[in-house]
Amino acid sequence: MTEIQLGLTVEFGRDRPLQLDSGTVLGPITVAYRTWGKLNADRSNAILICHALTGDQYVIGGNPVTGREGWWTSMVGPGKVIDTDRYYVICSNVLGGCMGTTGPKEINPETGQPWGLGFPVITIGDMVRAQAMLLDHLGIGDLFCVIGGSMGGMQVLEWAASYPDRVFSAVPIACAAKHSAQNIAFHEVGRQAIVSDPDWKDGTYFEHGTNPRAGLAVARMAAHITYLSEAALHRKFGRSLQDREKVSYGFEADFQVESYLRYQGSSFVDRFDANSYLYITRAMDYFDLAAEYGGVLANAFMDSKTRFCVVSFTSDWLFPTAENRAIVHALNAAAANVSFVEIETDKGHDAFLLDEPELFNILSGFLNGAAEHRGLKDT
Amino acid sequence: MTEIQLGLTVEFGRDRPLQLDSGTVLGPITVAYRTWGKLNADRSNAILICHALTGDQYVIGGNPVTGREGWWTSMVGPGKVIDTDRYYVICSNVLGGCMGTTGPKEINPETGQPWGLGFPVITIGDMVRAQAMLLDHLGIGDLFCVIGGSMGGMQVLEWAASYPDRVFSAVPIACAAKHSAQNIAFHEVGRQAIVSDPDWKDGTYFEHGTNPRAGLAVARMAAHITYLSEAALHRKFGRSLQDREKVSYGFEADFQVESYLRYQGSSFVDRFDANSYLYITRAMDYFDLAAEYGGVLANAFMDSKTRFCVVSFTSDWLFPTAENRAIVHALNAAAANVSFVEIETDKGHDAFLLDEPELFNILSGFLNGAAEHRGLKDT
Repeated sequence: MTEIQLGLTVEFGRDRPLQLDSGTVLGPITVAYRTWGKLNADRSNAILICHALTGDQYVIGGNPVTGREGWWTSMVGPGKVIDTDRYYVICSNVLGGCMGTTGPKEINPETGQPWGLGFPVITIGDMVRAQAMLLDHLGIGDLFCVIGGSMGGMQVLEWAASYPDRVFSAVPIACAAKHSAQNIAFHEVGRQAIVSDPDWKDGTYFEHGTNPRAGLAVARMAAHITYLSEAALHRKFGRSLQDREKVSYGFEADFQVESYLRYQGSSFVDRFDANSYLYITRAMDYFDLAAEYGGVLANAFMDSKTRFCVVSFTSDWLFPTAENRAIVHALNAAAANVSFVEIETDKGHDAFLLDEPELFNILSGFLNGAAEHRGLKDT
Repeated sequence: MTEIQLGLTVEFGRDRPLQLDSGTVLGPITVAYRTWGKLNADRSNAILICHALTGDQYVIGGNPVTGREGWWTSMVGPGKVIDTDRYYVICSNVLGGCMGTTGPKEINPETGQPWGLGFPVITIGDMVRAQAMLLDHLGIGDLFCVIGGSMGGMQVLEWAASYPDRVFSAVPIACAAKHSAQNIAFHEVGRQAIVSDPDWKDGTYFEHGTNPRAGLAVARMAAHITYLSEAALHRKFGRSLQDREKVSYGFEADFQVESYLRYQGSSFVDRFDANSYLYITRAMDYFDLAAEYGGVLANAFMDSKTRFCVVSFTSDWLFPTAENRAIVHALNAAAANVSFVEIETDKGHDAFLLDEPELFNILSGFLNGAAEHRGLKDT
């Protein structure tokens, strides 16, 4: 086993800029990341976790901003499905994010001010290229596995398409190869909520000492509904009242679901940057993997030797099974090695973050099988 | 045939106040309405149309605010399904509305200022009681039919439950007997968007010469997505770009669906009052018909002689078929006379407003059958 020092950020200088899909050249850039476990001598046991829209590199362990546990403690850790005793696990904050990787809230070296809307619009492809630079820096040629849900799944697909030789196995969960009209529409509602907030100030809120809290909270509330299912909301809240026996005939949060949603909005604002929300939603809107390959999704995976496991959830209406199945069809058309499972759950899109035993069992089986093919030792 | 003069508003004085579900007594009140066709000598051919959240009494003909045609021209008119050559058709603006019926934008006689948040919170039951006062005023004892979609359907159910002897037939379309947790959540997002807009000014925007346009537009955008289906959005827009050949790598409305949604938001603001939006969404949230009848929905329809036709749409995820079927189950449990149809369409919740031939055929058949039982002549 080779010890790799746990580094928190790496800066790529002006001499190693990132060529963005928009045509802009961005540099210097910083990538903030975390790792767990040890890279083996063959450098063959690395797993890259790609986080979702509002996720970050704090997959497990304490998150310094929220003070809470990481977002995937159910899946990742010693003895867990993504076993940090066995694998070397990496997660970096995405390009455009707000947890240390270069994004709109960081300082633009040209102006000495936060980038704000001066930050270039980025894509899922750009995020993945920044991750590839991180892997180069860590001395990791190819990944044993790249895995992620939602926007993380989009990055998984982009990885498999752009760097097929660097991806031994790939697990896109609850995602799509392109963002749907309905999902673009929901993102646009969130963005309009933010830019309508006078405290947004055309993106220069840091300079003005303001924060578009209200707009970002509304954006989060709208998005949060899409992460759950109607059945889950009914099971959790139904029409139950919040700390009262009858309705108030007013506009307080009479219903538990209102109170819950308000909390989701206000707590999100404490940890997320409004401009990052604009940029990252835009990157998802722009994602259309087939378009990068002549309009035929299968072309993205031609001659791929990667082992795929595609996972969807029955009650996920943000990235419904049909979208995930379209990925599987393309992989089959490309004669790729693919397993597909649709998990029966009422937990909606967020099921990938939650305690979902069937998901754990399936991924555990898939990873063990892949590890055997890779020739990884048991421990 | 007895000619009824087309009146636009009726005022009920302080001596005839409305007893609200909240316990508040509201009076005087004005009800704004429109009628089409002629009441027959038996006064047996009246149809009450109940409008949805953002609808109004301008069912057909020009709408003086929008300058556009009414919202149900496909369904109502001479020779149409709701045939104004045969029936006497009435529609009134709901209590709490903003098209002439007493609501938060009207003047509170106590203060001489617009009601604003001083307006009492109202319910679907209150709306229906105001409509019943209008019918009394028009000299109409019982309705041949009461019909409406969405919130209009809630009013239909409330009519059938509260005034069974005044409702010969009832057509609740694309609605529910209670508002679901998910729907309350979407309403709460819209309300938070409005009250977060600094131009809302705690509801006193008229006095301040402002208008929470941005907040109301965001509320409308979020709601509008729920009125359509993913399939319809995909069919109409997909990922098509708006007046450009490639994405702009910016935050303009690159996608047609964004442009469409922005238009829906901004045009809505020109015709609707933000406080009315708060009050009417709240009335829908509070709707839970079973709760008024000991928690058993069937009790709401015991011994009812009303003929019901319940209609749902396969792609309506705001008021899905399951919610409509729950109404049918309750009606069956109450041994009521009920037909139920689920119409196959990809148009989503808004299908009831659109050109939907199967809906026209079914309602035409239902109304003709009911007319025969009622002993109405063909013309």
